[in-house]
Amino acid sequence: MRGDPDCLIRGVASLDEAGEGLISFLGSRRFLPYLADTRASAVILTPEHADVCPVNALVTDNPSLAYAKVASVLTARAPLAPGIHPSAVVDESAVIDPTARIEAHCTIGAGVRIAAGVFIGPNCVIADDCEVGNDSRLIASVTLGSRTVLGKRCLIHPGAVLGADGFGLANDQGRWVKIPQLGRVRLGDDVEVGSGTTIDRGALKDTVLHNGVKLDNLIHVAHNVELGENTAIAAQTGIAGSARIGAGCTLAGQSGVAGHLELADGVHVSGQTAITRSIRAPGLYTSTVPAVPHSAWGRNFARIKQLDDLFRRVRALEKALAETADDQAEN
Amino acid sequence: MRGDPDCLIRGVASLDEAGEGLISFLGSRRFLPYLADTRASAVILTPEHADVCPVNALVTDNPSLAYAKVASVLTARAPLAPGIHPSAVVDESAVIDPTARIEAHCTIGAGVRIAAGVFIGPNCVIADDCEVGNDSRLIASVTLGSRTVLGKRCLIHPGAVLGADGFGLANDQGRWVKIPQLGRVRLGDDVEVGSGTTIDRGALKDTVLHNGVKLDNLIHVAHNVELGENTAIAAQTGIAGSARIGAGCTLAGQSGVAGHLELADGVHVSGQTAITRSIRAPGLYTSTVPAVPHSAWGRNFARIKQLDDLFRRVRALEKALAETADDQAEN
Amino acid sequence: MRGDPDCLIRGVASLDEAGEGLISFLGSRRFLPYLADTRASAVILTPEHADVCPVNALVTDNPSLAYAKVASVLTARAPLAPGIHPSAVVDESAVIDPTARIEAHCTIGAGVRIAAGVFIGPNCVIADDCEVGNDSRLIASVTLGSRTVLGKRCLIHPGAVLGADGFGLANDQGRWVKIPQLGRVRLGDDVEVGSGTTIDRGALKDTVLHNGVKLDNLIHVAHNVELGENTAIAAQTGIAGSARIGAGCTLAGQSGVAGHLELADGVHVSGQTAITRSIRAPGLYTSTVPAVPHSAWGRNFARIKQLDDLFRRVRALEKALAETADDQAEN
Repeated sequence: MRGDPDCLIRGVASLDEAGEGLISFLGSRRFLPYLADTRASAVILTPEHADVCPVNALVTDNPSLAYAKVASVLTARAPLAPGIHPSAVVDESAVIDPTARIEAHCTIGAGVRIAAGVFIGPNCVIADDCEVGNDSRLIASVTLGSRTVLGKRCLIHPGAVLGADGFGLANDQGRWVKIPQLGRVRLGDDVEVGSGTTIDRGALKDTVLHNGVKLDNLIHVAHNVELGENTAIAAQTGIAGSARIGAGCTLAGQSGVAGHLELADGVHVSGQTAITRSIRAPGLYTSTVPAVPHSAWGRNFARIKQLDDLFRRVRALEKALAETADDQAEN
Repeated sequence: MRGDPDCLIRGVASLDEAGEGLISFLGSRRFLPYLADTRASAVILTPEHADVCPVNALVTDNPSLAYAKVASVLTARAPLAPGIHPSAVVDESAVIDPTARIEAHCTIGAGVRIAAGVFIGPNCVIADDCEVGNDSRLIASVTLGSRTVLGKRCLIHPGAVLGADGFGLANDQGRWVKIPQLGRVRLGDDVEVGSGTTIDRGALKDTVLHNGVKLDNLIHVAHNVELGENTAIAAQTGIAGSARIGAGCTLAGQSGVAGHLELADGVHVSGQTAITRSIRAPGLYTSTVPAVPHSAWGRNFARIKQLDDLFRRVRALEKALAETADDQAEN
Repeated sequence: MRGDPDCLIRGVASLDEAGEGLISFLGSRRFLPYLADTRASAVILTPEHADVCPVNALVTDNPSLAYAKVASVLTARAPLAPGIHPSAVVDESAVIDPTARIEAHCTIGAGVRIAAGVFIGPNCVIADDCEVGNDSRLIASVTLGSRTVLGKRCLIHPGAVLGADGFGLANDQGRWVKIPQLGRVRLGDDVEVGSGTTIDRGALKDTVLHNGVKLDNLIHVAHNVELGENTAIAAQTGIAGSARIGAGCTLAGQSGVAGHLELADGVHVSGQTAITRSIRAPGLYTSTVPAVPHSAWGRNFARIKQLDDLFRRVRALEKALAETADDQAEN
C-alpha cells in the first residue's frame, strides 16, 4: 500500500471511468495506457507498476484476485428477505429452510430439500427429491431435474438445465430405443453454472462436478461425466459421455472432449480444439485452426486432403535424390 | 439365458455397483474388467462373454437394447394424475384431453390441442394453435411457438424451444429487414429433443423432423430443415437453413451442416466436422482436427496456410529431378 | 411490374405451393425450376427472370427485400391487447406503460420500466431496474438480468438470457474467486436476439449491441463485447470477452472470436472459423475444414502435426538439388 491509508473507498470502476472515492485495478498490461490519467482514488496493481501509479496504490502480486475480493465487499448484496412468494407452487412434502427465499412462479416438487440461506429466483423449476445446499443461488429460470444435488454456495445462472436425461439410445434394427437415464447430477460446493448450460443426469451412475468447478454459458456436460476440483470451462464447450476431466483443468471456448476419455489434472485446452484421445500429462493442448483470408483458404485448405500423398511424394524425392547422389559418387 | 430361471429381479445397476436382486449389462468391452467381480443377480451380455459370466446370464446379440427394454419395465413411471394445475393459465379455446396432465405455471394459448395421455411439465409455454400428440411429454420449461405440431410419444427436455422464428433477413442498403417466418415446426412420432435445443419454424414451408428423430442438447435446427426418420444428432451440432438430412443418419457432437445441402440416408458425421457439400453416398465423413501439444501446434498448424505453395515446390522438385535424371541419362 | 395491376393479393407462399391470390418470390436461382409451373398470382423477381415469369411479375433488383416488405404487410399481427395478465407478478415500483402487454406468469422486478407498445410474452423474467424500449417484443420465456436496457423495436426469442453474469474469475492458489460482474447489457434499436442466445453483462463497463444487430440462436456473447451496427451473427457462434466487432459484419454459424480482439467494419467470417487475431481489413476470412470420407481423413489429417517437418524436408531437398545442379554445372 502506498499513499493515504485513510482514503475512503465506496465503489469500483475501470481505470478510465473511475473518479473520487472509487478504486480500480490494473489486471493486465493491456490497460496500462489508462493508468497515468486515472482519476480513481486508488488502484490495485503489481509492484512492477507501483512507481508509475499517480494515485494511492494497493500493491499485490495478484491484482485481479485483490480486486475480486475488494469488489465483493463493496458490492455486497442486500440480505435475503426469507420466505416463499405466494405465487410459487411448493409441494407440501418439500422442506424449505425458513431462512431461504423462493421467488415468484417457482415450482418445487415433492421431497425437495432447500437449505438455509438459499435463493431460488423467479420461474425456477425444481423437480422431485432435489437437494440445494446452504447459500446456493439459482438466479432465475433454472430447471433442476429430479434428484439433482447441489452443494453449498453454488451459483446457477438463468436457463441452465441440470439433471435432464442423458442421450442414451440403443439401436433396434434402425429404430432407436431409449435407455432409461437413472443416475443423478451432483454438484460439490462453490460450483458455478452459466446461462443455458446443460448438465445431463447419469445413465446409471451420477454425473459429478466436484468442488469449485466453474462453467461458462451454453456448455454441454453429458451423462456420467466427472469434472475435477476447480476445473473451469469456457462457453460452448462440450464434454461427451463418461469423460473424466481432472482437477485444475481449463478448457477454452468451443472446445470438445470425446466420450470415455480421461484428462489428467492440470490439462489446458485451447479454443475450438478437439480432444480425441485421453491425455496423461498436464500442459496445453491445441487444434485451433486460425482463419486466413478466404482466397488463401481456397488454395491451401483443400490441400489437407492430399497431404498423405504429398508426404509420399517427398519421400520418393528423397530416395531419388539419394540415388542420384550415389550415382554421381560412383561416376 | 443361463442360470436360475426363477431369479427375481427388482432393479438395474452397473456391473460394479449391482447387488442382490439387480440386473446389469455388459454393453461394451470397456466394462469387461468389472464382470468377474460383479454381485449382480444377473447380467445381460453377448454369447461371446457368457462363459465368463459368474452369475445368471441373459444372453443376446444386443445387450444395450435388451438392457433398455428391461430397464424401461423395471423403472416405469407412475401413471399420470390427469388434470390441470390451478396455477396453469389455459386459454378457454384450448382443447385439453381429460387424461392429460398440465403442471403448474404453464401457459397454454388459444386453439391449442393436447391429446390423451400428454404430460406438460411445470413452467411450459405452448403458444396458440399448437398440437401435441398422444402420450407426448414436455418435461419442464419447454417453449412451443405458435402452430408447432408434435406427434405421438414425443419427449421434449427442459429449455428446448420449438417454433421460434427462423433467422431470415433481407439486406436494404446495409440495414437488415426481417423476413416474416410463416412456416411451422412439425415433429413426427417418437421424436426426442434435448435440453436447450432450438428448432426454428420454416420461412414459408415447415421445418420437419420425421418419426424417430433423436436430438441431444443445445442443437440448432434452422428454418426449413428436414431430418429423416431415425436420424440421431449429438449435442451442439448445427444444421443450417433448408438442409435436408436423410434417414438413419448420425451426426456426432459439435458438427455442422451448411445451408441448402442434402445428405443421403445412412450418412454418419464425426465430431466437430464441417459438412460443406451435399453427400450422396452413405458412410462416415470427418474433418475433426485432433489436438496436439501446444508447442507442436505452433510449429505445424501455421503451415496449413502455406500448403499450396509447398505443393508447388514439391512439383518443381519433381520436375527438376526428372530433368536431372534425363541429363544424366544423356551423358 | 408486369401484368394485371388490379390483381388482388391476400397472402404469400413458396413458388411451388402458391395458388390463386398468393404472391411468391424468386430469391435465388436455386428455385428457378419452380418458376415455370407456379400457380401464384404474382411473383417478385429480378429483371433477369421477368421474361420467363408465367404470371404477374413484380420486378425489383432485390426480391428478398421486396418480399420481406410485402409479407410483413400481408401477415401483420393483430394489435396488442394492452394490460397485465392477473397471474403476472409485477413489483409495485415498476412502471408499465398502459399500452404495453404483460402476459401470464411473468415476473417483473423493482424499478423496471416498460415503454409504450411493448409485448412481454408468457413466463418471462425481467429483473430489477431493466428498461424495455417502445414496441419491443419478448416472445416468451425470456430472462433479463438486472439493469438490462433494450432499445426500441427489439425482438427477443424464447430462452434467450440477457444480463447474466460474465465469466470472470481470479485464481487464488488454484481456487477460483468470483469477480463481481457489475456492468450491464445494453441493446440499441431494432436488435433481434435468437432462441437460447446468452449475452452476459459487462464486468465493469457494459456489453453493447448497437442498432440493428441481429443474432441467431444459441450464440454466446461474453462480457464487455461490443457489436457494431447492423452486424449479423449466425447460430452457435461465440464471441469471447471484450472482443469488439465492427459495423456491417457477418459471422457464419459455429464461428468463434477470441477475447480482446478487434474486427473492422465489413469483416465476414465463414462457418466453424476461428478468429484468433484482430482483423483490420474488411473481407471474408475462413478456417473451415471441409469433411472428407473417413478413410481419407485417417491418412491425411494425422499429417498436419508433421507439417513443419515436411517443410524442412522439402527445403533440404531444394538445397540438395541446387547443389547437385551446381555439381553438374561444374563437371
